[in-house]
Formats: sequence, C-alpha cells, structure tokens
Amino acid sequence: MQSIQEMGQSAQAAAFTLGQLATTKKNQVLLAMADALVAATPTILAANRQDMAAANANQVRQVMRDRLKLDEQRIATMATGLRQVATLADPIGVIDKGWQTDAGLQIAQQRVPLGVIAMIYEARPNVTVDAAALTFKSGNAVILRGGKEALQSNIALATVLQQVLVDLQLPAAAIQLVTDTSHETAQALMRLDDYVDVLIPRGSGKFIKTVVQTATVPVIETGAGNCHIYVDDSADLAMARDIIINAKTQRPAVCNAMEKLVVNQQVAAQFLPQLAAALAPYNVELRGDEQAQAILPTITPATTEDWATEYNDYILAIKVVPDLDAAIKHINRYNTKHSEAIITNDYAHSQQFTKQIDAAVVYVNASTRFTDGFEFGFGAEIGISTQKLHARGPMGLTALTSTKYVVRGSGQIRQ
Amino acid sequence: MQSIQEMGQSAQAAAFTLGQLATTKKNQVLLAMADALVAATPTILAANRQDMAAANANQVRQVMRDRLKLDEQRIATMATGLRQVATLADPIGVIDKGWQTDAGLQIAQQRVPLGVIAMIYEARPNVTVDAAALTFKSGNAVILRGGKEALQSNIALATVLQQVLVDLQLPAAAIQLVTDTSHETAQALMRLDDYVDVLIPRGSGKFIKTVVQTATVPVIETGAGNCHIYVDDSADLAMARDIIINAKTQRPAVCNAMEKLVVNQQVAAQFLPQLAAALAPYNVELRGDEQAQAILPTITPATTEDWATEYNDYILAIKVVPDLDAAIKHINRYNTKHSEAIITNDYAHSQQFTKQIDAAVVYVNASTRFTDGFEFGFGAEIGISTQKLHARGPMGLTALTSTKYVVRGSGQIRQ
Repeated sequence: MQSIQEMGQSAQAAAFTLGQLATTKKNQVLLAMADALVAATPTILAANRQDMAAANANQVRQVMRDRLKLDEQRIATMATGLRQVATLADPIGVIDKGWQTDAGLQIAQQRVPLGVIAMIYEARPNVTVDAAALTFKSGNAVILRGGKEALQSNIALATVLQQVLVDLQLPAAAIQLVTDTSHETAQALMRLDDYVDVLIPRGSGKFIKTVVQTATVPVIETGAGNCHIYVDDSADLAMARDIIINAKTQRPAVCNAMEKLVVNQQVAAQFLPQLAAALAPYNVELRGDEQAQAILPTITPATTEDWATEYNDYILAIKVVPDLDAAIKHINRYNTKHSEAIITNDYAHSQQFTKQIDAAVVYVNASTRFTDGFEFGFGAEIGISTQKLHARGPMGLTALTSTKYVVRGSGQIRQ
Repeated sequence: MQSIQEMGQSAQAAAFTLGQLATTKKNQVLLAMADALVAATPTILAANRQDMAAANANQVRQVMRDRLKLDEQRIATMATGLRQVATLADPIGVIDKGWQTDAGLQIAQQRVPLGVIAMIYEARPNVTVDAAALTFKSGNAVILRGGKEALQSNIALATVLQQVLVDLQLPAAAIQLVTDTSHETAQALMRLDDYVDVLIPRGSGKFIKTVVQTATVPVIETGAGNCHIYVDDSADLAMARDIIINAKTQRPAVCNAMEKLVVNQQVAAQFLPQLAAALAPYNVELRGDEQAQAILPTITPATTEDWATEYNDYILAIKVVPDLDAAIKHINRYNTKHSEAIITNDYAHSQQFTKQIDAAVVYVNASTRFTDGFEFGFGAEIGISTQKLHARGPMGLTALTSTKYVVRGSGQIRQ
C-alpha cells in the first residue's frame, strides 16, 4: 500500500497533467466513467453488500445504513451525475478580469485549478463519485477519504473511475482513494501541506472543528447549519407557517434545515399555537424559552445548549424576542454562519436583517432549504462553505479553482 | 492589560459596527487619522527614539534599523497613505453577481467585510498605519502585532488612531495593538478562532511556515518570493539583461526581487558573460550549476539548497537548462508560487510558460518587480498572497472582504 506521502506526491504530478487538459477531453472522460459505472454495477453492488453486512453486524444507525446502501437505481443516478457534470461549463481558463497598467503591462486574471484537493467525508459512496467528477472537471487531482463503513463500496467505485483514466491515457493518481481508514492516516492527510492545496471536510460540526484544529493544509469548512427563521411582527403568518414546515420537516437531517425559531413577541401568542398545530402531524418536538412556554405550556424548556445545537432531527427550539435588534443579536451569537431567514412584510426590517446578519446566505421570505448548489443554479455542489475565506455558501465548480495573473509585457522594468 | 481573548471579543463587537458604516464616514475617519498623525509627530518621534536606542544597544541589523526609523517625512508619508486610502472605492456592498432562480428567488452576491483580521508583521511602524487604514476602509476590525523592536513606535501610532475613533464615536477596539510581544501571546492570537476570521502573517518564509503549522485561524500566506527569470533561446538578450538588472538589483530585499536565473543552453555561452559584465557594478555574487561555471569559471558552485533559497540579497544563482520543458520543471519544483518570468520572442513558448508555471503572477518580457498592489493599479496593498485560496497575488481592499448571498423571495418553499 502507498503511504499518504506517496499519494500526495503522485497526486501533485497528476494535477499538472489535469491542469492542461482540454475541456472536450475532460468531458469524454466523465462520460466514459458514467458508462463504466453502469457496466460495473454487479461488482459495485457485491462490494456494497459487504459494507452493508458489516454495518448490520455492527448495528450501525438506520439513517447511516440508508445512505450507505446502493442499488441499481442509485448507481444509475451516480452515472447521471457524471454526465451532468460533463455538460457544465469548464471554469478553467476563464478570465475574471483583464486590464492594462500605466507601464503598458497587460494583466489577465485567469482561472486555474487549485491543484490537489483532499476530501474527508461520511460513509456515503455517492460522494466518492460526485467529488471525483467535480474535482476532475475543474482540473484538480483528488485524494478521497470516505467513512470506513463504506470502504468496500468506495474501493469498487474508485477502481472503476481509475480504470477509465488509465484506459484514456491519463494518470490514475488523478483520483485516489485512501484505503487505510485509520485516524492516523486521516491526520497525516490533514497535515500534508507539501502536496495538498485544500482540504474539504464534510461531517458533523464537531468533526469539522477537530479538522480545523489538526490541519495545517488550508481548510474549507462546510456544512454545520444551526439555521434560524425569524418571524417578524409584520410577517404574513400563513407564509411563515408554510416556510417553517418546509424548512423544518422536509429533510431535517440536512445542513440547510431549520433548527431554531425566533419570533417577535407581538405575534408570538397568535402564531405559536397555529404553528404547533400545523407541526403536530410531523411529530416535531418543540422546546422553548420561558415566554414560549407561557404560550405553549406543554413544550420542553430550552437551555443555552439548545440555542447552540444543530439537532439534525425533528426538534425545534423557540425563542421569543422583543424586537428585530434582539433577534439579530441572538442569531449572530448562536448561528453557524450558514443560512438565516426573516419572514416579514416590513421593508426596513428586511433591509436591516440582510445587512446585519452574518451568514453565508440570508433570506427574506423564503425557506432556508434553498441553500444548495443546484437550487442556486450552479449545476453542481461540492459542499456549503460556512467560512469567509475563498468561497462562502454553496460551492460549485468555480469554488474548486484559484486564479493566476498572467502579465504580458514588452521589456518593462520597474521605475 | 487585556487578555488576547478579551481583545478578540471586543474586536468582534467593533467589527459589527464597522460593517455597517457608510463610506463617507469611513473616509472622514481616515482623513482625521491623517491629520492626527501629523499633529502627533513629536510624540511619535519620541517613542521611535526609544525603539531606536534599544535597537542600537541590541546591535540590531542596519537594514532593520532603517525600516524602524521614523522622521517627520516618514510620518507625513503615512498620513498621505491614509488620505489615499480614503480616495479608494469602498468594496463593501458591491454586488459581484446577481440572478433569478427557477423558483423566482432573487439572489445577490454582495461584498461584506471579513470581520476581524489579525496581522503579525515585522518591526516596521508604517505597516501599523497601512494595515489599520486598509482593514478599516474594508469594514474590518484589526488586531495588530508588530515586531517587538517597534513596540514604542507602534503604541504611539495606535494611540493616535484609536483616539480618532473615540473622538468620532466609534469603538476603539476597531484597531487594537497587541502590546505583549511574547511568543505565547502571538501563538494565542494564531489560535483565536472564536474571534479572528483571518490571520495575515508577514515576514520570512520560515516564519510564515511556523504560523501555518501553529494557526487554527485561517491564514493567508504572504510574501515568500524565490522568483525566477527564464531566458529563452529566442530572447532579446539586451531586454533580458535590462530586466534582470532591474529585477535583481533595484531592491534585492523585497519579495518580488529576482533570485534565480534559468537560461537556455543555446544562448548561455553568449548571454552569461554579457550579464556578468552588466551586473559587475552592482556587486552581485553569482553562483551557478556546472554548465554556468564552465562559462563563468570564477563563480561559486550552486547547491541544491541554493535553488530553494530566497536570498533577499545581492546574490543570483544560475541554472542552465536544455529547453523550456526543463526550465518549467525546475521552476515549478523550487519556486514559492510568487512571481516568475520568461524572456522570449517565441509565441508558443510564451503560451506554454504562462500556462504551465504554477505561481501567483507569471510574466512574459517584464520584470518580476511589478508584482505589487500599486503597480497593478489596486491603489493599495496589504501583502502578496502566495497561496491559492481566497486571494492570490497582490492583495488590495477586495482581498480583505468576503461575500454574502442575499436572497429575496415571496414565500418560496423547496419542492
């Protein structure tokens, strides 16, 4: 087995080749990968059965087993994803800006690949294929380290993708899978700054915090979403109710799901009972501060820990506030800078909220569930950045690139 | 004295205020700071004399004492710098992109401040003022930690700037100076991720490497510049000579100065003696590989360490290569991703070099000394980023900002 150092080194060499590839060649590879995945369905499913058997034996949680399980349909969906990435515009070579300086230099700021991208992610085999597709299309080599529960599935998938690379005379090291799923190897990957240009961790907020503490490679933090919806005193309460039901219950385990309701005290007494009734069929556990409890006496008291927790579950904590300033203060204190919404019909309030809330995405009168690369129209998504450097919010292909200034002169020297 | 934690906390609170300021207010503050600096010249010079006396007593290197020393003219130049930053366009609120989605959401990607910026830098008092001006104009709070040799000067300068903030009803914590110059406090600042959004270290390559190893706060690496100029076989040799003299000798201590000459073997025998003669008046020590030594027998042999070293001095190491591919391979192996140039009259070679060299700035037929925020026309510069995330190359005001997606809807829920 290769050491992580050797993987980094060969990834860097492969990245040089990938950075020079024509778009048509990259698309040809992606389409061939799609076909190869479908053709290899029996092999991939056999590997996945091994993972599923181990997961059952180890009593892995049902939600995790759901994400781990592959079938013919899911493999076909992965192949469709590869074909869709082939249709996306290639970000490499795009000139963001260009100008001429006083000295007569022509400067062009041009999009280039980041180089080598490392990803550490959960036990979801589809992420292996998605991440490989997006990093490849953007001209980057990738080192993938998926959750250990998905190891056999990931090996099967990566083997198929690498075989296509080799068949088409490209370096197999462009897409590499870390098969040693020990923590030591993951940590070594986080500190491989000689070869890795950026590390994108996916997973729980706690896991990402650990990565930030450990990594010396630049990290793009993703995904932790303690998302709030603030219901203003001027809100259309029916709209507020529908948006909250959508944001809380459509897919409670995802990062753009609503976690907290902040409600103006002017409308709390009217709104909360309506909302509780509307949420009842969804079995959402309600928690609340003292004012919320006074209105809904049967709910659980919310603690300080609640305000800071991303439940990823059918739980909603409610905070009643005197005004918009208090709502903004509470949200900026406890949010994870992901997605925050105000439901309002007051123009000035909408302006203040969008200006003062510190988050990747700030909504007026819409569900937080729209924070997504596909919903934003990017045609792809590698994750949702919750940090302020490089990329913020849903990350598409461009987030996987950097820029280079190309300066053309005619013998200029500096005065 | 405040703890570094308390400084971070008050900086974060101040950043909220700064992020909301109107451009005219920010410019008013910058102009008032310029006037206040000039008015405080005697106090600042008295403080600087203390630093200079200590530097003399401690036999600090001449080049460092030159950078440390203030006089009336240098304070006037700082004030001019503040006034110039006031004239620059405010990046905050600029909409980079805007579009409407299928669901009818209006999305605007808007420039926002990063929040709290920390800077660790050399004993150069002018950086204290420059950095304060640029971070303030871009709506960020800043925590400054300058070299300990400049402590008294920095205290005097920061006191003047903070007094202006207070006089104009703004939080003094918008511009804070770390007066405890211990390594422990610097390290605590590097790990203050609850409050600091980005850390910009300036200094030697070795220092920046240490920061990357220690920091948990996102870092923008700056400044290390092992810059190469490649003289192609098709080069105009007189142009090559003039550019090399400029890039090597104009200011050898700065990061965009040339450090290495890579020359095609077809022209080496003709070019190197001409170049050596032209460089002779500048007392540049030449080092070289075996082929260079065969042409210039009196030069010092260059070792592998030479190829990787940024001299920041009147030293130039010469590598003779058989062709462009070898030149690109050598440069990509040893460069620090800062600035690289080709001197050529061959169109295809210019294209290959700009495409295949991995660096923030790649030049054709121009001096590497142009890698500079002012020369690029940014009107300011906080440093030269040599990393690929967020900002690459000269960083002006926009590099000190992030973006936020503001999404305006009319009750949309996700299907």
